[in-house]
Amino acid sequence: MISPDEAWRRIAAHVAPLGEEGVERRAALGRVLAREVAATLDVPADDVSAMDGYALAGEVAAGERRGVAATVVAGDAPGLEMPAGAAVRIMTGAPVPRGADRVIPVEMTEGPAKDVRVSEEARGAAGGERSEVVFREGVAAGANIRRRGEVMRAGDALLPAGAALTPGALALLATHGYAEVPVHRAPSVAVLATGDEVVAPESVPGPGRLRDSHTDFLLAAGASLGLRVTPLGIAPDRVDELTALVERGLRHDVLLLCGGVSMGELDLVEGVLAALGCQSHFTAVAIQPGKPMVFATHPGGLVFGLPGNPASVMVGFWLFVRPALRRLLGGDDAWWRGAVAATLGAPLPGAGARDRFLPAMVTFTAGGAPRADPLAPRGSHDLAAYARGSALVRVPAGSPPSPAGAECQILPLADWRE
Amino acid sequence: MISPDEAWRRIAAHVAPLGEEGVERRAALGRVLAREVAATLDVPADDVSAMDGYALAGEVAAGERRGVAATVVAGDAPGLEMPAGAAVRIMTGAPVPRGADRVIPVEMTEGPAKDVRVSEEARGAAGGERSEVVFREGVAAGANIRRRGEVMRAGDALLPAGAALTPGALALLATHGYAEVPVHRAPSVAVLATGDEVVAPESVPGPGRLRDSHTDFLLAAGASLGLRVTPLGIAPDRVDELTALVERGLRHDVLLLCGGVSMGELDLVEGVLAALGCQSHFTAVAIQPGKPMVFATHPGGLVFGLPGNPASVMVGFWLFVRPALRRLLGGDDAWWRGAVAATLGAPLPGAGARDRFLPAMVTFTAGGAPRADPLAPRGSHDLAAYARGSALVRVPAGSPPSPAGAECQILPLADWRE
Repeated sequence: MISPDEAWRRIAAHVAPLGEEGVERRAALGRVLAREVAATLDVPADDVSAMDGYALAGEVAAGERRGVAATVVAGDAPGLEMPAGAAVRIMTGAPVPRGADRVIPVEMTEGPAKDVRVSEEARGAAGGERSEVVFREGVAAGANIRRRGEVMRAGDALLPAGAALTPGALALLATHGYAEVPVHRAPSVAVLATGDEVVAPESVPGPGRLRDSHTDFLLAAGASLGLRVTPLGIAPDRVDELTALVERGLRHDVLLLCGGVSMGELDLVEGVLAALGCQSHFTAVAIQPGKPMVFATHPGGLVFGLPGNPASVMVGFWLFVRPALRRLLGGDDAWWRGAVAATLGAPLPGAGARDRFLPAMVTFTAGGAPRADPLAPRGSHDLAAYARGSALVRVPAGSPPSPAGAECQILPLADWRE
Repeated sequence: MISPDEAWRRIAAHVAPLGEEGVERRAALGRVLAREVAATLDVPADDVSAMDGYALAGEVAAGERRGVAATVVAGDAPGLEMPAGAAVRIMTGAPVPRGADRVIPVEMTEGPAKDVRVSEEARGAAGGERSEVVFREGVAAGANIRRRGEVMRAGDALLPAGAALTPGALALLATHGYAEVPVHRAPSVAVLATGDEVVAPESVPGPGRLRDSHTDFLLAAGASLGLRVTPLGIAPDRVDELTALVERGLRHDVLLLCGGVSMGELDLVEGVLAALGCQSHFTAVAIQPGKPMVFATHPGGLVFGLPGNPASVMVGFWLFVRPALRRLLGGDDAWWRGAVAATLGAPLPGAGARDRFLPAMVTFTAGGAPRADPLAPRGSHDLAAYARGSALVRVPAGSPPSPAGAECQILPLADWRE
């Protein structure tokens, strides 16, 4: 039995990002860039105003009055010639007229009471002074102008290799015209539930039987990472049929086996994996629940063998499988990464020789601090407690019970704000 | 201009969960239960052992020796008769033999050196004593037996109304045989970008033009909540065409307008919304970026009018639109809920009259505490900074600059562990 830190070390040693593929931008949410992507445009694309105000050519003195010759707004084509002796009303992001060298913010002026209405006739209408503006003070040359390419030049790094394609990153790629993006290939994942006692959720279980929950859990947990998980069904406890199904599973980058690794049953799955050329890296981790856990590799991928009870499958997935899948996708996750401090809303039991992981409901205090209420499961068959929690709370091995109000470490299981 | 707290109060007053619909279990990830769902099974389904050990009928004395008559494992049908004067090897979760009244854990015995191998011939084989066990001590009647229905009885509440259908919750519903689940209807959402200067991402923008990023952002941001967002394209700054497109958008539960609410342009969108029977609840919020923001309602749904720059669209979505969508889905989100404390890894600028929201990269210290490195955007057109951040850091109005090492409040933008 090894520590969870050592278990992760052994897993991470065998998990590298998958190769590159091109994916259509709108299908790339959650994927990770396989290489740096460059800007295709200067940002800003022109010299633009940083403020709402008035563009001017040369100095103006405090109290000076100018006619307002035109208005430019964001989106106007650049190239308006600065009319001599006049001011041009200019909006934030609008192109600076040719010849203008500064922008005086509207706050430093007295002039048209109402902002110029942006409409068809106002846009780009350079002719005819329509109003006047008085400047309370001047500004230095260059003031309030953002120069073309000041933020970024075409060819500069836009997003680095390893960047997660969040909604914001996809928006950025859209502005630079990327129809397809180079990402790490998404792992193909298969799930195989095992056990003579397990029946499909659609069936009515007979005496001593129970419905499979592992497949549904892992399909949904994979979907929340953007992965499509292939269900291989339920394998009986017979070597020939188990071997045939595991062989199918090994064609995927990751095979998730549920059941068949608990005490007494361990040999069956271990034997099948060994016979199919898999190398085992551990068979037990000092965590509760989830101690019997197999991690094995073969030339084509990874195998996680999780225990047969639902709480152990969940905890094993959250702690080890999820960060491994993220690494295959190109991210840099690790076990227990993303955990944060929280205050216990109720007492937390202690732990024996293994780290315990209990489900917890997270709420937020008026000040915004997370508060964790542990849901003590009544046995490892108490799936409901794990299903209801929005975070896992860790009880380090050897810890005494903690009172309400003490600090604890929690790992959010998803977006936890509900 | 109103505070963000007041803005959320006005939004929340108009956002109630949508009606109920039945959704197939494997399509229900991320949805929220519209009503309580009941257990269909007793949990455990039989009297089962809480430990690996030996089932016995009546007391045994310290040092007593018994023959091991059979082995029962989880999944075996209940009903084995307890053989007189013998012990039955029993695994955690296995059905307690009829007549047995206690289980002595394997740790309190000396017996078969190796755990009984679970195989075809061992299962349910009640005949023939195969080995003996010596008990170092006895246990009280009832010890280490979990009674049928002890965790939950058929008909008990399984999950409450309002429960989020996480992978764990879906697994729980699978074990109770729910093929379809009653959830709140998912809102239909439409997005309409506006502005003569905006071109589709597939186009090459001419002088003064820029590509639409709002649609891509909102499609992906909606998808991350499990929502399908309908893109309505790009509306020009003309009342007739804008009206026609907004009218189409109002057929959805939520219309997200991007652009056309900034200074000078505000009248256009406001006028169109008013003409179509929408009631405006605010037009500006004291946040930076994103100050010009319209929230309006009509009998068929909600309208958010976000400013035309990409950073403002993102911030407006994260702060207000996302929690509103979650509430329509039946969740209980609120603005800035889920924010946690972090330590600044770099100095944070101060804020003027409005709360500022800056993007930040989150990393974790060796001890697991979140560290936020603010990415100071170079103007509101610096989409790249917002696209790269994994959290928003809040600078409350009136705050002086903060040094590295100070505490701050951050809102994770997604699952933030990468």
